[in-house]
Amino acid sequence: MSDQVKMTQVNYDADRPKADNPLKVMDLSLRDGHQSLFATRGRTEDMIPVAEMMDEVGFWAIETWGGATFDTMHRFLNEDPWERLRTLKRYIKKTPFSMLLRAQNLVGYRNYADDLAYAFVDRAAENGMDVFRTFDALNDYRNFETVVKQIKKSGKHFQGCICYTLTEPRLGGDVYNLDYYTAKAKDLEGMGADSICVKDMAGLMSPYDAYPLIKALKKAVSVPIHLHSHFTSGMSPMTHLKAIEAGVDIVDTCMTPYAYRTSHAAVEPLVMSLLGTNRDTGFDIRKLARINEVLEKEILPKYKHLLDDSKVSIIDINVLLHQTPGGMLSNLVNQLREMDALDKIDEVYKELPRVRKELGQIPLVTPTSQIVGVQTVNNVLHDTPDERYKMITGQVKDLCYGLYGKTAVPIDPEVQKKALKGYARGEDPITCRPAEVLEPELDKAKKEIGDLAVDMDDLILYAQFPVTGKKFLEWKYGKSEPPASVKPITLEDVKKKDELIKKAKAGQLV
Amino acid sequence: MSDQVKMTQVNYDADRPKADNPLKVMDLSLRDGHQSLFATRGRTEDMIPVAEMMDEVGFWAIETWGGATFDTMHRFLNEDPWERLRTLKRYIKKTPFSMLLRAQNLVGYRNYADDLAYAFVDRAAENGMDVFRTFDALNDYRNFETVVKQIKKSGKHFQGCICYTLTEPRLGGDVYNLDYYTAKAKDLEGMGADSICVKDMAGLMSPYDAYPLIKALKKAVSVPIHLHSHFTSGMSPMTHLKAIEAGVDIVDTCMTPYAYRTSHAAVEPLVMSLLGTNRDTGFDIRKLARINEVLEKEILPKYKHLLDDSKVSIIDINVLLHQTPGGMLSNLVNQLREMDALDKIDEVYKELPRVRKELGQIPLVTPTSQIVGVQTVNNVLHDTPDERYKMITGQVKDLCYGLYGKTAVPIDPEVQKKALKGYARGEDPITCRPAEVLEPELDKAKKEIGDLAVDMDDLILYAQFPVTGKKFLEWKYGKSEPPASVKPITLEDVKKKDELIKKAKAGQLV
Ligand SMILES: [Co+2]
Ligand SMILES: [Co+2]
Repeated sequence: MSDQVKMTQVNYDADRPKADNPLKVMDLSLRDGHQSLFATRGRTEDMIPVAEMMDEVGFWAIETWGGATFDTMHRFLNEDPWERLRTLKRYIKKTPFSMLLRAQNLVGYRNYADDLAYAFVDRAAENGMDVFRTFDALNDYRNFETVVKQIKKSGKHFQGCICYTLTEPRLGGDVYNLDYYTAKAKDLEGMGADSICVKDMAGLMSPYDAYPLIKALKKAVSVPIHLHSHFTSGMSPMTHLKAIEAGVDIVDTCMTPYAYRTSHAAVEPLVMSLLGTNRDTGFDIRKLARINEVLEKEILPKYKHLLDDSKVSIIDINVLLHQTPGGMLSNLVNQLREMDALDKIDEVYKELPRVRKELGQIPLVTPTSQIVGVQTVNNVLHDTPDERYKMITGQVKDLCYGLYGKTAVPIDPEVQKKALKGYARGEDPITCRPAEVLEPELDKAKKEIGDLAVDMDDLILYAQFPVTGKKFLEWKYGKSEPPASVKPITLEDVKKKDELIKKAKAGQLV
Repeated sequence: MSDQVKMTQVNYDADRPKADNPLKVMDLSLRDGHQSLFATRGRTEDMIPVAEMMDEVGFWAIETWGGATFDTMHRFLNEDPWERLRTLKRYIKKTPFSMLLRAQNLVGYRNYADDLAYAFVDRAAENGMDVFRTFDALNDYRNFETVVKQIKKSGKHFQGCICYTLTEPRLGGDVYNLDYYTAKAKDLEGMGADSICVKDMAGLMSPYDAYPLIKALKKAVSVPIHLHSHFTSGMSPMTHLKAIEAGVDIVDTCMTPYAYRTSHAAVEPLVMSLLGTNRDTGFDIRKLARINEVLEKEILPKYKHLLDDSKVSIIDINVLLHQTPGGMLSNLVNQLREMDALDKIDEVYKELPRVRKELGQIPLVTPTSQIVGVQTVNNVLHDTPDERYKMITGQVKDLCYGLYGKTAVPIDPEVQKKALKGYARGEDPITCRPAEVLEPELDKAKKEIGDLAVDMDDLILYAQFPVTGKKFLEWKYGKSEPPASVKPITLEDVKKKDELIKKAKAGQLV
């Protein structure tokens, strides 16, 4: 058969014998799934109906929190993010919870001070979080130091991410090659990582790159290797398979209704494909089917309207074409369109790798993809033959100062010098861990918010999201009325709307 | 790296050196693509804008005709099917055309007489068809005999199909196992097949079955092996990859906007995945991207309303659960629902393999899946503890008589006897090639239709579709006015409708 998996007896029963080396699976439906497809709008009440069933599947972990959920919940759903954690924990008792932690950015969008970082991780652990999947856009692990100290102190699982990015197609060129990834994995293991995740948020990883990459990582370190590869480009089902053959320990998938498009491949085809091999997951496909039925019938009708249906295509082949994240490319196009300069798109594609290189060949992930993208468009629109970088963005200045961390290669000294000319924090870049230059912020936040923050959880929410966090706390404690827009819709509402949409489609409203 | 593909230099250029053993690809967008996703409603005028570009890609062939297109075109689109062939041939000059031929069923739904079969293939070849992909639902290759004679006489490519079906999950159990498929492949090679297609219309093939299957077929015969595996269950991207590693010569894909769901995996991720291997397709991803752009912007908006959007899921995991075609399962459910007997579904799933076995363990493909499905429901609803098969359908009687051909194993003699009791054609089943008992039919058709059929192409259309064919010929020759429903919609119409749908979605029409 294949030289990479071993064939065994195909056995379909729920209680079949355990495989030699079962593939472990983390389910992302309740976090990355709805974050990718439904604007992170999933509500706790819509997770409860399947929570106990999902606990029975046998997932290695279920991702339930972090990423954009903390922000979206309090801002758009009038939900206390901490409460979700505690609520789901009452239904999911056996399967560990996982969260996406933006390292020193926590679940917000800037580096926070160490006191807030310690407090956040401590409270997340106390409220029920088990696995802290931690990433930094620059893969600068100094940005992990503070949170890791607290993850370990809380006795929880530290999963260190390597953000997957490319210099040239298919792992070619300098910097982002096999050596880079194995070195990063060793760094993480040295920091005490309990597992290592290759985080391919853009879906750039091809199957025949996954194979040598996973092989190399398995050889380089002894902790489990976990693959997170979005479906966006259409390669991930193949990439999963070759990663599995190479020995990957854990992969990320979604339940079918939360799968595909810019989300992840579905778990069910993988479960069936691995039946009768030494990597059999051991999952009962019937259980998965029952969960899907509930999701499709009772839950997803409330979210369908959030799906991007502007295109028929469910993959973004621009990702394949340009080896850059889909979101970054559409931002570039939108930016140019707004400036009425769409004809400059080919110049932008040409300038992009140059700007990226000059800015230290940084990974193209959020937020660095935006930093490189906006600056590239600025250069194309404003530079003259004798002068480049005529209009430098604030974020590029921050990057040049060292606020995001250390870049993969040094920033071009001329660009750096120009960027920091007259920069408010100083013209000499820092080389220390970025958060070291930040003042503690919890006390200050407490003074600002006063008694509206009843406990530490409230205060941490406010500290990361001062404007929307304060508004939420006012709703929470009855100081002001939440607007109608944050209220859930019902299946009844959906039915009424669907009737009208049906009529519109049938041309009966024309 | 992998032991199955050989790694080479990754080269992205359009004019990169040819791979050792390039994977050949057939594009299905213009036939199976829109047949699977858009109710076969694709119009010739919407194929022309990309036809020349598609001719430049380097496809092994482009599927342009056959299957349900012949029926749909004249019935719903007021298009002459023969004209599409000639028109597309003016734009696609280098790439061979392929069609799906239902063997003695031609492009209709019953066995036609030999004189009609000869005439059909002759005229298809004359009008520009190159590759005749021929299949029979029972894999009874006696049903190929007539058409193959004419394909060969016309000097065209005969591709013989083996319909892929399972007895038990993952190629287990009697009948449909490796031996069956290699024996069938040898039969086809013996009949002069220029290539052999494994036709997995239901998306049942798993990657670790594809690998040994393709290996075995490559060993058994010397003609090229072609894989047709629908995406329906979500396994096909992985199945493609393992088939490629096993040495498959040709795979079927669609351009991205025509891909996924119940259609096929997209070509673009596969092209990029195979870059830098000995199976590199040699395709230029930029060309594919330009085609997609035209399709998404100018063509697909006119078809989007035909997409099944009743579910968020884009795969059908019932196929994984029951190892039977998705369409068959939803028909079972609908049939039971109509009889208000949905609670009997589990009995139906239990009775199904039994009925199938008694009816000769036939493949579950159109139309045999319906034959087995309807009879199963009848048995569950009407049988009593002392009597089975109380209500036998006409189609099961025809099957028992031998009208469809020879079943994989003999039909249960008791069931057969009961079915043929009082059967109009006789109580003794035939064992000859089914079409041998049919009278020639072209002359009779000519007498019926008279001068309304101006040439042989008209007559063949009428002979296969007497009612709708006649109606179409009346439209074609100005004897009656085609109804508004057969007219194409414009991008303008679409825009207007989309505005209303948008309003309905935003709740502005409530
Ligand atoms: Co993600
Ligand atoms: Co097909």
